[in-house]
Formats: sequence, structure tokens, C-alpha cells
Amino acid sequence: MKPASSAQGLAERRRVVVRDGAAADPEPDVVTVEEPLEIRIDDEPVAVVMRTPGDDFDLVAGFLLTEAILPEPAALGTLSYCPSASPPNERNVVDVRLAEGVPFDGAGIKRNFYATSSCGVCGKASIDQVRLQARRDLADFEVAGATLHGLPDRLRTAQDQFERTGSLHAAGLFDPAGELLALREDVGRHNAVDKLVGHHVAAGRWPPPAAILMVSGRTSFEIVQKARLAGIGFIASVSGPSSLAVDLALEAGVTLTGFVRGRGFNVYANPGRLRL
Amino acid sequence: MKPASSAQGLAERRRVVVRDGAAADPEPDVVTVEEPLEIRIDDEPVAVVMRTPGDDFDLVAGFLLTEAILPEPAALGTLSYCPSASPPNERNVVDVRLAEGVPFDGAGIKRNFYATSSCGVCGKASIDQVRLQARRDLADFEVAGATLHGLPDRLRTAQDQFERTGSLHAAGLFDPAGELLALREDVGRHNAVDKLVGHHVAAGRWPPPAAILMVSGRTSFEIVQKARLAGIGFIASVSGPSSLAVDLALEAGVTLTGFVRGRGFNVYANPGRLRL
Repeated sequence: MKPASSAQGLAERRRVVVRDGAAADPEPDVVTVEEPLEIRIDDEPVAVVMRTPGDDFDLVAGFLLTEAILPEPAALGTLSYCPSASPPNERNVVDVRLAEGVPFDGAGIKRNFYATSSCGVCGKASIDQVRLQARRDLADFEVAGATLHGLPDRLRTAQDQFERTGSLHAAGLFDPAGELLALREDVGRHNAVDKLVGHHVAAGRWPPPAAILMVSGRTSFEIVQKARLAGIGFIASVSGPSSLAVDLALEAGVTLTGFVRGRGFNVYANPGRLRL
Repeated sequence: MKPASSAQGLAERRRVVVRDGAAADPEPDVVTVEEPLEIRIDDEPVAVVMRTPGDDFDLVAGFLLTEAILPEPAALGTLSYCPSASPPNERNVVDVRLAEGVPFDGAGIKRNFYATSSCGVCGKASIDQVRLQARRDLADFEVAGATLHGLPDRLRTAQDQFERTGSLHAAGLFDPAGELLALREDVGRHNAVDKLVGHHVAAGRWPPPAAILMVSGRTSFEIVQKARLAGIGFIASVSGPSSLAVDLALEAGVTLTGFVRGRGFNVYANPGRLRL
């Protein structure tokens, strides 16, 4: 069964009992779809994420790689919706078969996952962990300041083509000249990044080494972690980064910009990829 | 060791390498603090959350109760920062001792936690799970439409007293007349709700039965889940709910409003607590 494309399943209708604070209104409203997705590897449950359905296989591939549960795209064998699940669940459980020769170590995955999402539990240990797990070197490339200025509008324009609820987070991948390579949306910020990474991974390759990740929300530690593990060395956001996001970007060599709005932006780490 | 109060630790300084797209600037900028917090019960790791430090014991208490890992406030014994952790971690590991007579079942906690955060994996199973776990009946009370209109401004005004980065999510608890009972902020939306619930729980009681939870962001399934398990029957947001948030609110008897802006708002579930 093929997963739904990114243009489907983002919104459903729910009845609005009261609208605009006054009149009862029988018209249904459009809301963002949120459903749990269980990820299994060789039938073993690994994680559950709350996500907007669509591009589920991309989400799973991106999640497993950017959480360092799997080391590289080649480790992914086949992905399928669980055939044994009853009809209501048929799109909410994805099972991953690892590629031939990739050993399966359920306990190892649990250790790894715990270490990744939690990290020795101070920020420093987290950062060390991510640096050790990153398999790809980051590329050297240059982005013009004027190109960076244009990204929020380009992301928004692309988002307008799909969005119907105003409640979805977006992540876009751009080339250094500011051309949109792909856009994904989700009720969860991290999921949008995972879908974007997984979109490339599903085609058998990591995302291109010279690329800018633009996110619609704030930049957390986990966004930088996912970008670094996917080999993306440039992050832009219309909002600000967290303290641990800055610390990780500095140590991992990721160019981190924030408050990209109007004609201004801040750079918090590794300005060498920016041509001012 | 006492945890930091909510007014401390929300922001730190990080150097901005480039500001406004042009000039190098040696002035540090203020960013939201994000650090991992490991939660242990009787020395057993239960979960790690990325959070803004401050009100850590409230966060832990709220988390354990609104995820149904613990059934009621009385199950909480003492909370302390891990004495064995080395200095850099001393505020990032909290150990919970259960109250006397509360049996500890690590495997049960894992099962429970998995079931709660993931749920039989279709939306319907999630909702059933939450309904079964809720120990408190929801109260009947009335909120005037005019009161609801005023909440975003009241939340924003209260938030202004603390906020310094513009990047924190807020959750406020109001009484039915619109008076602010408590406000908490965090880099994570769910954490702000957990801190709010934990603030009351730490004083030995659930939040008051007649109360409105106002969140600064979108309303996800987990926000409704946390409110329901804390016995809060009225949720307001300046943004919209997800599909699963509406479904859970309908079934759980929670009044769910959204797009509370200017003089308008929508009601998605259980309008009986609203006096128009």
C-alpha cells in the first residue's frame, strides 16, 4: 500500500458548535489532522509519534536516521503498513524491514534511542553524543544574505498551496541559491523535518550536502540534531534558537541563523557559509 | 536543594555573530534556555524531557500525573535533585520517592507510559485509554463569553512580566471569572501545562475543579489529555485544535474553544460551560 502524498490527509472537518462567540453554526470547520503512528522494526515497536498522516514512510525513514537509530539510508530495507493491523489502524502502524546483512539488536536500539533523545543528561553530554553519531561531513558552500532574506516568503508561498488550517508546522529544504527543493508540513515541528529528510532518503540518498533547512518555528536542540545527522549544515528560522541549539550548532559546525524577517537576521553560529 | 523559581533560568545569553544581516556585533543576545531533564522513580529512569529549567519539581509532578504514570497526588513522596550526579548535572536529574505504601512496578510504569503516550495506536484506542485513566470527574461551571475574550490579553500581560526572549510557550490557569491563578512558561508546550498542574499538585491537591486552561499555542491531543487527567474541563487557545484533540474533548466532556482572538472564538466541544 502506498502512503498518502503530502497534499492529502492534512486536514479534516470537525463541527464548530459556536462560531465567533455568538451564533450556533452547523458548518464544519477544517482542522489539522493528528494521529499516532507506531514505528516497528522487524515487528518490534520502537517508537510512537503523534503526526499528521501523509508521507508516513518518509517520516519513518527520516525519524530512524535523524535519531541515529539507523546509521545510514542503506540500512533501510522495505517499509510497509502493518498487514496484520485491523482496518482502523491500517495506516497508523509502519513496519520496517532492515536491509539484508544489517543486524537487528532491539536492546541496542533502545539504548541508542534513549541516549539520543535524552543524552547523558547534561547539555554537554548530549552534544558529544550527537557529534559521535554524525556519519557525514558537512559541506562548504555559500549563501548570499539576500537569498536568506527571501526564504520565509518562499516557504510561505509554497505552504499556501497546501495549507488549509493555519496550524501546521513547515520545513523546507532550499539549495544555496534559494530554490525550493522540497517542503513538508506536520502538526509536529520535528516530524516536518523528518519527512523532509526521509523524502530524500527514500530515493536512496541523503539530502544534498549543500542545502538550507528552513523551519517555520523556533529552533530547538532536536532540530539542530536532526539537521546535523542528516548532513545539513545550514539552518534558518523566522524565530529564535534555544540555548542548547546554539551550543550544538557551534560545536557541530552548523550555520545557525534566526529571526530571518524582513531585511534582518541574526547568525548564532558558523557564519562562514554566509556571504554578506 | 530547592528548584529555581519560574522567574529564573528562562533565558541565557549567547553571542550573536551577525546581527540584522550585516554588521558583526560582539553583543550577546538573550535566548530561551533548553536543557534535558531526566525523571527517575526510586532511582529508575522513567523519561527524559527537554525543558526550560525552573519549577522542575512541578514539571515532574505534573508530568507523572498527566501521563497517568502515577494515579494521584498522594502517590508522590519526596522529590529531589539526584545527589549522586556530578556538579554539571545536579539540576538535570530529579528522583521521585513514592509515598509509603505505593507499590513500585517499573515494568508497569513502562507499559503504562507506552500506552499513554502512544495509545493502542488508532485515535479511538487513545481516547478510550484516557477515559479509563481519568480519576476525577469534571466539574460543572459557567464562563461568560466576555470573560473568554479577555483571556489572551491577560495571559500576555502576565507573560510580559517574565519573558525576555519571545520564544517561550505559556500556559495559564484562570478561574471562571477570568482571574489568573497561575502562569508557567517553557520551551515545550506540554511542559508549561505540566508545570501548571504540578504547581497545584505540589501543594497537595489537584488543580481547582472549576478552572480554564489557556495555552499560547495550538491544542494537540496531548494538551487535552493532560487537562482531562488533571480534572480541568475547559480549554482555551488563540490557535486551533487538531482533529484528535476535538475527538478527545467531545468524548471526555471537556469544553474546547479555539481561535480566541479579538471578540471572536470557536467552540469545538461541550459548549455547556459557556454562557453566551
